Amino acid sequence: MRSSSRGDVDPFIVMDVMEQARRLEQSGRSIIHMEVGQPGTPAPKAARKALADAMERDALGYTVALGLPELREGIAKLYADWYGVDLDPARVVITAGSSAAFVLAFTALFEAGEIVGVTEPGYPSYRQILKSLSLKPYPIPTYSADRHVPKLPDTALAGLIVASPANPTGTMLSKDDLGALIAACQANDTAFISDEIYHGAQYEGRAVSALELSDDVYVINSFSKYFSMTGWRLGWMVVPENHVRRIERLAQNMFICAPHAAQIAALGALSARDETEAMLAVYSENRRLMLEGLPAAGFNKIAPPDGAFYIYADVSDLTQDSPGFAAEILEQAGVAVTPGLDFDPVRGHTTLRFSYARSTEDIAEGLRRLAKFMTERR
Amino acid sequence: MRSSSRGDVDPFIVMDVMEQARRLEQSGRSIIHMEVGQPGTPAPKAARKALADAMERDALGYTVALGLPELREGIAKLYADWYGVDLDPARVVITAGSSAAFVLAFTALFEAGEIVGVTEPGYPSYRQILKSLSLKPYPIPTYSADRHVPKLPDTALAGLIVASPANPTGTMLSKDDLGALIAACQANDTAFISDEIYHGAQYEGRAVSALELSDDVYVINSFSKYFSMTGWRLGWMVVPENHVRRIERLAQNMFICAPHAAQIAALGALSARDETEAMLAVYSENRRLMLEGLPAAGFNKIAPPDGAFYIYADVSDLTQDSPGFAAEILEQAGVAVTPGLDFDPVRGHTTLRFSYARSTEDIAEGLRRLAKFMTERR
Repeated sequence: MRSSSRGDVDPFIVMDVMEQARRLEQSGRSIIHMEVGQPGTPAPKAARKALADAMERDALGYTVALGLPELREGIAKLYADWYGVDLDPARVVITAGSSAAFVLAFTALFEAGEIVGVTEPGYPSYRQILKSLSLKPYPIPTYSADRHVPKLPDTALAGLIVASPANPTGTMLSKDDLGALIAACQANDTAFISDEIYHGAQYEGRAVSALELSDDVYVINSFSKYFSMTGWRLGWMVVPENHVRRIERLAQNMFICAPHAAQIAALGALSARDETEAMLAVYSENRRLMLEGLPAAGFNKIAPPDGAFYIYADVSDLTQDSPGFAAEILEQAGVAVTPGLDFDPVRGHTTLRFSYARSTEDIAEGLRRLAKFMTERR
Repeated sequence: MRSSSRGDVDPFIVMDVMEQARRLEQSGRSIIHMEVGQPGTPAPKAARKALADAMERDALGYTVALGLPELREGIAKLYADWYGVDLDPARVVITAGSSAAFVLAFTALFEAGEIVGVTEPGYPSYRQILKSLSLKPYPIPTYSADRHVPKLPDTALAGLIVASPANPTGTMLSKDDLGALIAACQANDTAFISDEIYHGAQYEGRAVSALELSDDVYVINSFSKYFSMTGWRLGWMVVPENHVRRIERLAQNMFICAPHAAQIAALGALSARDETEAMLAVYSENRRLMLEGLPAAGFNKIAPPDGAFYIYADVSDLTQDSPGFAAEILEQAGVAVTPGLDFDPVRGHTTLRFSYARSTEDIAEGLRRLAKFMTERR
């Protein structure tokens, strides 16, 4: 059978960690999971109840391609609530996770062969989705000393993807920095795509939405993180008014619609603010423990951890082989962490990402194990 | 904001029918829905029960990219049961509907610019998904007199997509015809993609799977039709053994995973054969009524209606403007039908598709209305 070069995307290096963790657990070892980028909690109770009720009375067939109107309205209200932005629900597109939103955005905006800027470190799937759609990811290195604010390169870009809070660093862009980036992109006919999937997961100050600064941007978000609904595969995208029909036609053909059951559950989640804020309080306490425990253990060169639920540590004084080091930590300390290579193919040999999305009990135990491991290693 | 030419895909013409039907219903008219390509029934009870139970005990986070192992095994068993094919579950990939399977297949197999054959008439989204991925759909007209068996063109094709039973015709390929097509494709390095989404919905004889004839094909199927789970967005794909890793990497990045809740529900659906066979009995009775009522009403040039839940009628003696004719039928008879242009941009001006996926009561009433309309029109 033939195959394409664009289909040759990279594997996730963290998968090796996860597989090894699974094997150790199967053999009876206790493993603390600081490698996974998802909450350990289920969807809010109100979300599950909404779906359980709907399953009794509705066939849950296809929805319209852009999503349930009441869900689009609920999301528009979120923008008023979170950012004070008056958003027309007609601009909100419900998608099968932020993943589907990226596929829709990239096909709507870019021709095959065009160049799209991505930050390094950054979410690895940006690069791979771009490649699979015959686009060329252009890496833009960012630095902890600059609070990971990307600088536009001299190369002309068809688009730029920026996340704030970012994965893996957790670092947020200030309103000024975000505004300057958007303005620079607009001056160069560079489509600005703002990945806001970690909005809501913030601990000091709040994340700024690109929609506070311009209507001429693509904004992508999801129910996965703040609303704790990863496996439901439900996200959304806000697009300029004159792109709605374009996205609708693409979505009709490429996806038909986002999962109906997940849309019903998400409607319930929107009304469960007490539950989601309680989860946020857990992350906040976990972060406090991490910011105390990681440096005490010897991981003290970390990116500004403004939001999301990650700490990104420079471990260049400890190793030049992050996958090997992660394997050592897993084997000896019983803590699974993510080597930085997934996020930064260049400098990731000397970085690790620690996730604190699980329970506070797990985080505390993980930190004890890391401290012990580092002491014994010295 | 910039935009791409590949993102300029065609709208669905049937959407105008659906919107007009909605408006008429809102104004108090009764409309019989023969335009929609989905069952009116919900997912099987066993599917909904499986999910309701799982929501009580599981966080339903991401699954692995290829899908729940037990679901992949259940699907492999279906191939033994339906076709007598011994299928390794490792070759089964769970996808977010057959839509996601097409995106994965096309990116895994084809470079930007390559030419892929699609039948006309055929499912319109093949063309549009190909276009959005910078591929060139190559139309292959098929004819009722030939039982809609496509003939390979002289142009070299990177791939060929064939559906049996087909949408909109319902026509099935014989084992010999399917085998000859696969062999011809393999001789020309043309990837053969078999869309088997209507398998199970068959009334005289059974549909043949491409997997009965070769392992070197892509087979795409879904829980949408036979299992009555359209809105759940869950499908699957069977790929050659040496393509599994390639698809896994693409799926990890482009989709992360198919909806977990839908995977749980699908596991339940696999064990609900009594329920799905009961739905099939309804389609079977509906088809009997259609094959009696449509010719009696004056729609007598129809494609061989072997499977699926569609009748595709040549109405060239009645109109040269199928969208106008469909609008007339909707307005005057209160029956929504699909103009053929969505399926065949060339000859669809003179064809209509009638769906019989809804209740037998609806079908009987729709046929009465169509007969009355045609009598008054003469």
